Amino acid sequence: MAAPPSTATPLLKDELDIVIPTIRNLDFLEMWRPFFQPYHLIIVQDGDPSKTIKVPDGFDYELYNRNDINKILGPKASCISFKDSACRCFGYMVSKKKYIFTIDDDCFVAKDPSGKQINALEQHIKNLLSPSTPFFFNTLYDPFREGADYVRGYPFSLREGVPTAVSHGLWLNIPDYDAPTQLVKPLERNTRFVDAVLTIPKGTLFPMCGMNLAFDRDLIGPAMYFGLMGDGQPIGRYDDMWAGWCVKVTCDHLGLGVKTGLPYIWHSKASNPFVNLKKEYNGIFWQEEIIPFFQSVSLPKDCTTVQKCYVELAKLVKEKLGKVDPYFVKLGDAMVTWIEAWDELNPAGGSAKRPNGTA
Amino acid sequence: MAAPPSTATPLLKDELDIVIPTIRNLDFLEMWRPFFQPYHLIIVQDGDPSKTIKVPDGFDYELYNRNDINKILGPKASCISFKDSACRCFGYMVSKKKYIFTIDDDCFVAKDPSGKQINALEQHIKNLLSPSTPFFFNTLYDPFREGADYVRGYPFSLREGVPTAVSHGLWLNIPDYDAPTQLVKPLERNTRFVDAVLTIPKGTLFPMCGMNLAFDRDLIGPAMYFGLMGDGQPIGRYDDMWAGWCVKVTCDHLGLGVKTGLPYIWHSKASNPFVNLKKEYNGIFWQEEIIPFFQSVSLPKDCTTVQKCYVELAKLVKEKLGKVDPYFVKLGDAMVTWIEAWDELNPAGGSAKRPNGTA
Repeated sequence: MAAPPSTATPLLKDELDIVIPTIRNLDFLEMWRPFFQPYHLIIVQDGDPSKTIKVPDGFDYELYNRNDINKILGPKASCISFKDSACRCFGYMVSKKKYIFTIDDDCFVAKDPSGKQINALEQHIKNLLSPSTPFFFNTLYDPFREGADYVRGYPFSLREGVPTAVSHGLWLNIPDYDAPTQLVKPLERNTRFVDAVLTIPKGTLFPMCGMNLAFDRDLIGPAMYFGLMGDGQPIGRYDDMWAGWCVKVTCDHLGLGVKTGLPYIWHSKASNPFVNLKKEYNGIFWQEEIIPFFQSVSLPKDCTTVQKCYVELAKLVKEKLGKVDPYFVKLGDAMVTWIEAWDELNPAGGSAKRPNGTA
Repeated sequence: MAAPPSTATPLLKDELDIVIPTIRNLDFLEMWRPFFQPYHLIIVQDGDPSKTIKVPDGFDYELYNRNDINKILGPKASCISFKDSACRCFGYMVSKKKYIFTIDDDCFVAKDPSGKQINALEQHIKNLLSPSTPFFFNTLYDPFREGADYVRGYPFSLREGVPTAVSHGLWLNIPDYDAPTQLVKPLERNTRFVDAVLTIPKGTLFPMCGMNLAFDRDLIGPAMYFGLMGDGQPIGRYDDMWAGWCVKVTCDHLGLGVKTGLPYIWHSKASNPFVNLKKEYNGIFWQEEIIPFFQSVSLPKDCTTVQKCYVELAKLVKEKLGKVDPYFVKLGDAMVTWIEAWDELNPAGGSAKRPNGTA
């Protein structure tokens, strides 16, 4: 039996934006109403800007379509992808909040094994507000969860942990498989509820999925660029992967934590594997060289901010991956443009230029 | 409702020994009878060798007390600890099987959330017989479990995995805490059943607990040395930790995998935290230097066997940790003695000298 949602003041109510990329009416929000309604939404409308996206009544939101993005960023709008959910990162840039939660519009509220509806956002906030433990593995998982702690043999000097920059949530029902796996296992569903949150160790890369993801914008925002995907690009469905690789090496360099595990959302529909295969083909091929590149990246000591790390990464991407395909030269340039645009909208003093949304 | 134990032929029946260190009658085996009875047991009796340890009827076992160890190893018996569960590693050495499962005599059969009794040994075998994935993190955990796979963005070149050398199981009820944590949280119990198995990434150390542990003796056996602990030594309760550090750097060097997570056992009683504090004090202090040492260890390329890795490690331990305390010089020597004894009992051709047990 589902418990009623908590009536206490929602956590971080005025410090978190929910970013949703979409091409359709946002009926999926009805199911999330008890959890999302107190928060502000940033909707990034992909595709035809003349189309009207309906948002259920009672939600507080701003909405940006392609015309808005072009108007706000001018020539720098070239770094924001079109006809791909990578466009969502524009929402990260225009937000002025400390925390971001981003979710796909085919993701619904999941239930835990007791049948209780999972407040995914609340769990992400718990993950982000408790430290990470990237330097040594704790076998009982997140030592900051209730009923857990560090086990025997965990060095005491490391028990303070480090600030958590990213909380990566998972999916029940349709797992996040690539096109080849979708084709081979069309009927596989994820039914295993793993009651764990854990820190991905320093030096270890992971496949970051953008479907159900939260992060601390102040700590890592400028590295959360979802790259050049979709319309006019030779690749799709690697937007979140690209961001994940860049984010992880940046977090490792700056001593920040990345957690994965809870919360689960219910992923309702598998995308078309034939269409996906076309989008992914180059990514599947290129990742065999991209991942060793990121595994061996070493950022200089004077890269003390996310922006400096990211501009250095952009340089290395052009140098090292430019040989794999000219696309990476374009991508490296776009990474620099992204940082320029980020800094324009988010000046250091905090007196950010406030873009005009069309909410 | 508990399901009846499987009646199929037990997995690896003739290829696995169960090693149990003890100072008392092995009544705890009654609860494990349905799962353990088909296997051979190696019992390592600690403490007073004149005491008789009773083993429940129907179990196939050999038993070694201190007199047996001294007789079999001669002067090399000095490398086997006395009055500490570290003595269990003698059982690894005299086994002639490919796989070892070791368990403490205060560990009982746990139940999964459905109430079914967990066959811990069967899960360990599943873990050991499926590959590990140390080079990249899979967010849906072990991709070789039923209903799971590699997620989008996992490089295809890494999907074959590597052989699994170690399976580290966990504990419900009494968690494996150090003395300070026991003192601070005397009533904390582990009630969280995390339905996951995962590979500990390459380059990441972990606190390996010897309470519920399985490994492939052929792949990693000679590195499973539990060190010098207990009687006459300045440290206790770090036997498994020491083995874990050595095993992990050896596995990382040789391209072998270490898994942790399932299976759970039910850990029945917390040991005395005051006694533990006395045993652990030096370990808590020293681990602050030991762990950075192991994190920075780099084994030479010509270390192509576990033995070669381990002898090299022994040399480095004496060199680098000998400065921390003279104990580490003695420990480094004991590591070499252990390898000599191992090779004597386990000659390369396989025509091992068969020790006479007192079963």
